[in-house]
Amino acid sequence: MSAAAKTELFGDRLDRAVRDKRSVAVVGIDPTPALLPPEMAALAAAGEDGLVQALTDYCGGIIEAVCDLVPAVKPNIAFFEANGLAGLAIYKFVCLAAAGSGVLVIGDVKRGDIGSTAEAYSRGLLDCPRVDIPDLTAEEQEAGNLAARIGSLLGPHDALTLNPYLGSDSVLPFVRRGAARGQGFFVLVKTSNPSSAEMQDLVLAGGGTVAERCAGLAAAWGEGYVGNSGLSAVGAVVGATHPSELARYRALMPEAPFLVPGYGAQGGTAADVVPAFRADGSGAIVSASRSVLGAWKKEGGAADWRGAARRAAERMNADLRAALENAGKWSF
Amino acid sequence: MSAAAKTELFGDRLDRAVRDKRSVAVVGIDPTPALLPPEMAALAAAGEDGLVQALTDYCGGIIEAVCDLVPAVKPNIAFFEANGLAGLAIYKFVCLAAAGSGVLVIGDVKRGDIGSTAEAYSRGLLDCPRVDIPDLTAEEQEAGNLAARIGSLLGPHDALTLNPYLGSDSVLPFVRRGAARGQGFFVLVKTSNPSSAEMQDLVLAGGGTVAERCAGLAAAWGEGYVGNSGLSAVGAVVGATHPSELARYRALMPEAPFLVPGYGAQGGTAADVVPAFRADGSGAIVSASRSVLGAWKKEGGAADWRGAARRAAERMNADLRAALENAGKWSF
Repeated sequence: MSAAAKTELFGDRLDRAVRDKRSVAVVGIDPTPALLPPEMAALAAAGEDGLVQALTDYCGGIIEAVCDLVPAVKPNIAFFEANGLAGLAIYKFVCLAAAGSGVLVIGDVKRGDIGSTAEAYSRGLLDCPRVDIPDLTAEEQEAGNLAARIGSLLGPHDALTLNPYLGSDSVLPFVRRGAARGQGFFVLVKTSNPSSAEMQDLVLAGGGTVAERCAGLAAAWGEGYVGNSGLSAVGAVVGATHPSELARYRALMPEAPFLVPGYGAQGGTAADVVPAFRADGSGAIVSASRSVLGAWKKEGGAADWRGAARRAAERMNADLRAALENAGKWSF
Repeated sequence: MSAAAKTELFGDRLDRAVRDKRSVAVVGIDPTPALLPPEMAALAAAGEDGLVQALTDYCGGIIEAVCDLVPAVKPNIAFFEANGLAGLAIYKFVCLAAAGSGVLVIGDVKRGDIGSTAEAYSRGLLDCPRVDIPDLTAEEQEAGNLAARIGSLLGPHDALTLNPYLGSDSVLPFVRRGAARGQGFFVLVKTSNPSSAEMQDLVLAGGGTVAERCAGLAAAWGEGYVGNSGLSAVGAVVGATHPSELARYRALMPEAPFLVPGYGAQGGTAADVVPAFRADGSGAIVSASRSVLGAWKKEGGAADWRGAARRAAERMNADLRAALENAGKWSF
């Protein structure tokens, strides 16, 4: 089989998506009630059918507003699981809608379990087929119908986030199942929350930190799945609130795509995230959620939540591009 | 409010359940296809309705067979998520059935995310009310109906397993939401899988290992939620395949209930797990899954899977009791 006939590996898919959209931004689809425009929040609070209607409308609207601007979206399953089975059906609707809109879907699921259990998770989260969403009427977007109409497995996912605390046993079952067919994984190496230091910054007897050791593992897990772009199917989550460390992690994982959270509402600036990118500007995507989803609160008002989200994504793109240009790293 | 009128804290609930049942065994409800009797496996493979029928029958039958013998069951959500939304509805059915059968439900969900995200998970996983399962006919146990009839939030859960890699931010939102109302948490301190050493056994510059540092955090997270039994609402998962370490972890977390996996199919013996218990024999529960769920393969045959599971649980109880008596730790 020629290289061209092979399935494209995740690193190459991501690199292509970034170049196609000329954007390194990822929009986190994290629909907390506080981010919904008041009318939708009221509908969501009125019962399960209202919730399904409000969240499918809202998340679907955000995806529509930003899908031509960014290479990927990242729904965090927690905000859907908060609403139980009905919420998880909406999660799936969001993944389907995003996949159908031409953006990569990064499922922020942070799974971590061992052996046969990791195998079970990987089946549920990696095997969902890409199908067109049936044209649902408003009445059909009702909780029971939604699940029945869109099928069962969660996704489709182009990539997942994974927790490394249980070691290779918890990561490799996912890699073995998905990497060869183009799916990717972002291992939580160094997260952007204040208490990440409690475990991740612990200094080891042999030198370096726990997170740096984890970076070495992540780099090894991706060997064998490096695409023509030089990017691997196993990437890393490295928080933007620790800019001084980004360059060090980049050196430890030269082939890993970085998913950098913490930009925007969490306090990271565009200049902070530049060291996450490789010398040619490839290899990293930067995610923001609240600053895009709740943009209507700062400008435009609730009636124009779609437009406000779109403008926020445009600003984020311009901001990141300027910082990369400034560093001589913009090549898109 | 008098102490007696307060909600019983998880440590006391667990201790009482162990004394009531005179058992320290936990049955893991992990229905992999290979564990199902052939007829049920065929039904499960025949489509979503068959799957729902087979898994609700099987898991419900196991719970019925062991519920008077053990203090708790531990469904691992991965084996349900493997079947997507339909599987997660079965997970909920299993939790409801267990809660209604008088056993504590430990949701093995291994969640770990930060701040508002942990908050969202905790809502979805801790707020599910205990309700009686509607009397479903065979036809009603069909995928769509099941979810519609049993409600949306996942659970009910008396306890959850949590991943500590993101630190306090990822654990305390759960503790704050559930501990005061009697729910408990088992933090993954040291797991029983081979690759756990890659992260958890790393030696720190100041001495001790990552897992031992994690033990200190887990002990601190439980302060303020220690019951009359001297057991806290924040416990720890400490694997039985590392028996030499159990005593050390017990010393580091004197008030933490231990959930000890790795007994049975994973290779741990009853003697191995004794150091997990406190001097008076309290403070630990030992879980096994495959050796109970698949007991029919070794004796009894597929037709008597319920009886085989019951006898396996009885053997496990006797085995653990003998080991504890031998060590002078049996006080139930």
